[in-house]
Amino acid sequence: MKKGRLNKISDVNGISVGHYTMDEGRLQTGITVINPSIENPFLNKLQAASYIINGYGKSTGLLQIDELGLLESPIALTNTLSVGRVQDFLIEHIIDSCKNEESLPASINAVVCECNDAKLNDIKNRKLEKKHLDMAFNNACEDFDLGAVGSGRGMVCYGLKGGIGSSSRIVEYNHANYTIGSLVMTNHGLTRQLNLYGNKIGLEIEEKLNSLKNEENFINKKNAVNKDEQELEKGSIIVIVATDAPLDSRQLKRVAKRAGYGISRTGSEFGNGSGDIVIAFSTANKVRHFDKKNEATELLDYQFINDMLIDKIFTATIESVEESIISSLLNSDGLGEIKSLKEFI
Amino acid sequence: MKKGRLNKISDVNGISVGHYTMDEGRLQTGITVINPSIENPFLNKLQAASYIINGYGKSTGLLQIDELGLLESPIALTNTLSVGRVQDFLIEHIIDSCKNEESLPASINAVVCECNDAKLNDIKNRKLEKKHLDMAFNNACEDFDLGAVGSGRGMVCYGLKGGIGSSSRIVEYNHANYTIGSLVMTNHGLTRQLNLYGNKIGLEIEEKLNSLKNEENFINKKNAVNKDEQELEKGSIIVIVATDAPLDSRQLKRVAKRAGYGISRTGSEFGNGSGDIVIAFSTANKVRHFDKKNEATELLDYQFINDMLIDKIFTATIESVEESIISSLLNSDGLGEIKSLKEFI
Amino acid sequence: MKKGRLNKISDVNGISVGHYTMDEGRLQTGITVINPSIENPFLNKLQAASYIINGYGKSTGLLQIDELGLLESPIALTNTLSVGRVQDFLIEHIIDSCKNEESLPASINAVVCECNDAKLNDIKNRKLEKKHLDMAFNNACEDFDLGAVGSGRGMVCYGLKGGIGSSSRIVEYNHANYTIGSLVMTNHGLTRQLNLYGNKIGLEIEEKLNSLKNEENFINKKNAVNKDEQELEKGSIIVIVATDAPLDSRQLKRVAKRAGYGISRTGSEFGNGSGDIVIAFSTANKVRHFDKKNEATELLDYQFINDMLIDKIFTATIESVEESIISSLLNSDGLGEIKSLKEFI
Amino acid sequence: MKKGRLNKISDVNGISVGHYTMDEGRLQTGITVINPSIENPFLNKLQAASYIINGYGKSTGLLQIDELGLLESPIALTNTLSVGRVQDFLIEHIIDSCKNEESLPASINAVVCECNDAKLNDIKNRKLEKKHLDMAFNNACEDFDLGAVGSGRGMVCYGLKGGIGSSSRIVEYNHANYTIGSLVMTNHGLTRQLNLYGNKIGLEIEEKLNSLKNEENFINKKNAVNKDEQELEKGSIIVIVATDAPLDSRQLKRVAKRAGYGISRTGSEFGNGSGDIVIAFSTANKVRHFDKKNEATELLDYQFINDMLIDKIFTATIESVEESIISSLLNSDGLGEIKSLKEFI
Repeated sequence: MKKGRLNKISDVNGISVGHYTMDEGRLQTGITVINPSIENPFLNKLQAASYIINGYGKSTGLLQIDELGLLESPIALTNTLSVGRVQDFLIEHIIDSCKNEESLPASINAVVCECNDAKLNDIKNRKLEKKHLDMAFNNACEDFDLGAVGSGRGMVCYGLKGGIGSSSRIVEYNHANYTIGSLVMTNHGLTRQLNLYGNKIGLEIEEKLNSLKNEENFINKKNAVNKDEQELEKGSIIVIVATDAPLDSRQLKRVAKRAGYGISRTGSEFGNGSGDIVIAFSTANKVRHFDKKNEATELLDYQFINDMLIDKIFTATIESVEESIISSLLNSDGLGEIKSLKEFI
Repeated sequence: MKKGRLNKISDVNGISVGHYTMDEGRLQTGITVINPSIENPFLNKLQAASYIINGYGKSTGLLQIDELGLLESPIALTNTLSVGRVQDFLIEHIIDSCKNEESLPASINAVVCECNDAKLNDIKNRKLEKKHLDMAFNNACEDFDLGAVGSGRGMVCYGLKGGIGSSSRIVEYNHANYTIGSLVMTNHGLTRQLNLYGNKIGLEIEEKLNSLKNEENFINKKNAVNKDEQELEKGSIIVIVATDAPLDSRQLKRVAKRAGYGISRTGSEFGNGSGDIVIAFSTANKVRHFDKKNEATELLDYQFINDMLIDKIFTATIESVEESIISSLLNSDGLGEIKSLKEFI
Repeated sequence: MKKGRLNKISDVNGISVGHYTMDEGRLQTGITVINPSIENPFLNKLQAASYIINGYGKSTGLLQIDELGLLESPIALTNTLSVGRVQDFLIEHIIDSCKNEESLPASINAVVCECNDAKLNDIKNRKLEKKHLDMAFNNACEDFDLGAVGSGRGMVCYGLKGGIGSSSRIVEYNHANYTIGSLVMTNHGLTRQLNLYGNKIGLEIEEKLNSLKNEENFINKKNAVNKDEQELEKGSIIVIVATDAPLDSRQLKRVAKRAGYGISRTGSEFGNGSGDIVIAFSTANKVRHFDKKNEATELLDYQFINDMLIDKIFTATIESVEESIISSLLNSDGLGEIKSLKEFI
Repeated sequence: MKKGRLNKISDVNGISVGHYTMDEGRLQTGITVINPSIENPFLNKLQAASYIINGYGKSTGLLQIDELGLLESPIALTNTLSVGRVQDFLIEHIIDSCKNEESLPASINAVVCECNDAKLNDIKNRKLEKKHLDMAFNNACEDFDLGAVGSGRGMVCYGLKGGIGSSSRIVEYNHANYTIGSLVMTNHGLTRQLNLYGNKIGLEIEEKLNSLKNEENFINKKNAVNKDEQELEKGSIIVIVATDAPLDSRQLKRVAKRAGYGISRTGSEFGNGSGDIVIAFSTANKVRHFDKKNEATELLDYQFINDMLIDKIFTATIESVEESIISSLLNSDGLGEIKSLKEFI
């Protein structure tokens, strides 16, 4: 399938992404924000759905997305133990974003997702502040950075340096073309599982990694991960799928489910300790926020793709998620003891 | 059915509850914590499940409960816009609680639930701090306060003063008796819906409230809620069900579902804007935390109640939740413009 | 709330209901069919959702309703062990109904729901035939019979004679009025639980039933149900909610969930052995069947009610389901050892 | 991972599989039965779960599996429009199997799954009879046939001849080894998607198929599938995963979910019109059927695998399902216009 102009989620019109990267000694973490729309999403909510592949995760905001089928906040990504802080900062951000509205929001569903960067980041030392979220928003643009940046800073994917990846696909209908974009934060998988577009290079890389460790006498008591531990997948992946194709929340849940099969193509087996979460949203058919019942429109008009013709959107999702994961690996330099995929291909 | 000694959730052995109440002018809010066990729940996790009656809510930690069937943190309750902050404080609390362990936790599923106290509390002015969570934990005891305390401080239920309620029931089996306890934070319902143990007094109270408003010329432009608005249920209820009966997570989800029918008995119709969330846990069959794969026990032993004989636990749950809601109303004095149920019976 | 003209589900325009009643000695069972629309539902599918309150049930067709959000068949009700047969007959019926179409359907999602009438019917003696389904369809009309007819023939509800019940409510919007109708097949509950519009008469009736049994020396070894057995709820309820209000499948699932709170009002505690199933559908926004991909319309237009204003539909559902259950009791004469509610009020 | 002795689902002790194949002109269909245990599953129910990958399907019995976490019947597979009939025959079979019991079952959850064989079978001509189910049971054995047999007779997978496939894996724990087996009925996928253990040969085969059609001037107006139609995935796959590893229903749902990632490896993108259903069960921790409440054991003892060590079971499931699908292709000869994979490798 054809790719979009930037081959990023921002090929879906209106989407921008920003990073704040914390790179201070043992603090290797950050925040990444996804603006789902040029408009304030609280005031113009987007059709959305989430899907839990494996629920060993701490994401916030998914319950309300599923009940109402709507996304009303930017999506922030960060590390596992900072979800609460960042959700609090995001609440502040959304209150600020509505300050010129007649009535300020008293109920806000702020969406924050996470992976666990404890291998490279001193995760219990929670130093992210509101100003860092602001910096991420200030940096938001269409042609955003990929790799070990933002919330992806400390992530490890298939035993290699992971982080932020993104890609997009164009689906063609008779009446219009649509873009399916995805952004991933990759922190999942064991090295031996890695499948690079059908090339199962994971086992080979694992052997090289093991011999490297021996060569360098890589026995650092403090940092070494015991062999047995390594065999347990304790990582996670967050996938954001965006599209301008008009899909409702039921259809977006179907799309979100397909994202998992894109992950699967890169080799993941979704281990017990993995928090594998997908959020899918559409920029079509936005729903205006109504503060007061007596001002709310009784009937809302929608146009949605016929399910009978939805298959190409599923295919685009699977392809895009697969490529986004690989892009997170190919755009990341090694960090600490964790090597980059680039050193092996 | 028979009630427990205190007729509170703490009749389930090992459970304690603590409040921090913030009562400072327009700041009418707080934090309530439920310790599910005398042991550290992170180190000895409890069988658990959640159930979403209506998902217009922002609770954290439910995804992982459902994936693993385990609760590994105390449960904190607070207001809607403070969920993130309090989750962050609770993370800190749990890290501290494990500081004598060999390996500190790097992944923690902290459970925080919320209702929206914006009618009585300046909710956007988020002033809850870590020390307030500490105070709630320090206050934790078995014979805890009910009513407009802790996170229940600013809650409004059926148009009357709501807050924290609790009760318990004893179920008798041949081999043992078990306790089913519940704790609720009530912020749901329209006055006219209120049903007091089968006595539909809501409509009558609504008329009295309306005439009171006229008498007192209760037209304060700033605080008055427009009539039409009042008709929309925008509240929520959080229900915690605890038991020492040995139930697994599938059974606890069945129990959690029944909690909704206890709420229903008090008149609720679960409006669109309601975040109605239930968490159920059992203090039997705890699962020890294993940090390292090679130390984990391969096979775990359990004993669970036969589903065929579970009905009396369902009945106890429904009865206890109904009584807990009423107890939240009967133990609350009026606050601001919101009257107490006690003034009408 | 206002009731519809007939106070039946058929107050929703286009819906008709037909019964076939088998009343032959120990064979006390039947089939009830609900035509959801004047049009062939296979060719013009309806927005729909299902909700499982307690899944001790054998209904067919719910998976596809939830995936596609569409109902494409009439709904047939029958007894537990005849679900397969009746599904097979319904497949035949739908194939016939499409015989004038260019391409006959090769994939049909036939919806059949059931309760267990083994107390009054020799359920293992499966004698329902295709001609009986035809007779049910031939009898279909708007002003259909209620009580111990059709599939409701052998049902027992709260220890009294149950069967088919129905009612309707009108909800008023500024732009239009809509009808919410429900039809129930009632086979659930213990006598002592019965709540008649707030009047908890169940316990009193249970005592009368017990003394009747003693008086009449009602000890028939073969038919008597042992006391302990009686305490287990082994029944079920099927609820069909229909509306002409334009709701999508997500909203209809919310409506279906509320049906449970209508059941709850009549006293049920949803025992372990209960198959409590709800299907909700809307006659608005039908989706045409497309046999061939190249003829399918790419974009479909819809209008749906704003969720913010959906509460009155929830209320109507709860009220209607409550009344439908009571109507199933009040319209049933006693059968065999099972008394009618009419004898006690 | 190591394979079991027969490399079939029957490597799990106690499981047998039988086929009845209908091969009569345009009638190319059948029934396959899986006995989950040597014991009568109604009397000794098995821990089980189901997972719906894509719900365009008509399987019966899944609701109750999910509510109770138990399987109480053999599993029968057949074609889409015969599900009702076969469910009825299976009810009869289970009643017969219990005829020596004191009390015959009045409520039976019979599990029947299906795929749509309309391309090769005159599906609307439903000729399967009870005697055919009996023949399938009579043929049941451990070393059962694979390929275009039983219910797999008319199935088409990746545009090639599909049918029944099976395989198994051994997982090693310190305390014991366990077997994970799977059986699939394959009817899914487009030719171009086919991935043979990492070898994406689908596109190549599709080109060969297209040139074959041209060569043979394969334009038979009646049978030809129009090009555009071919692009829509309308197939399905049924996956049965069995194990003697002690897993509860929550864990088995996790296993069932992983089956989808095994399917994914063979190339499927789970199109809109696909009914992709997984059932997973364990032969450990059976639960005895109790007819009477007063005879039921109050507490049941279990042993389950620690979730922390479950990953290798996930891996075994993914590997086994992948191989089972390929085995269904490699064991099938061509039928009618549908070629065998064997002709292309």
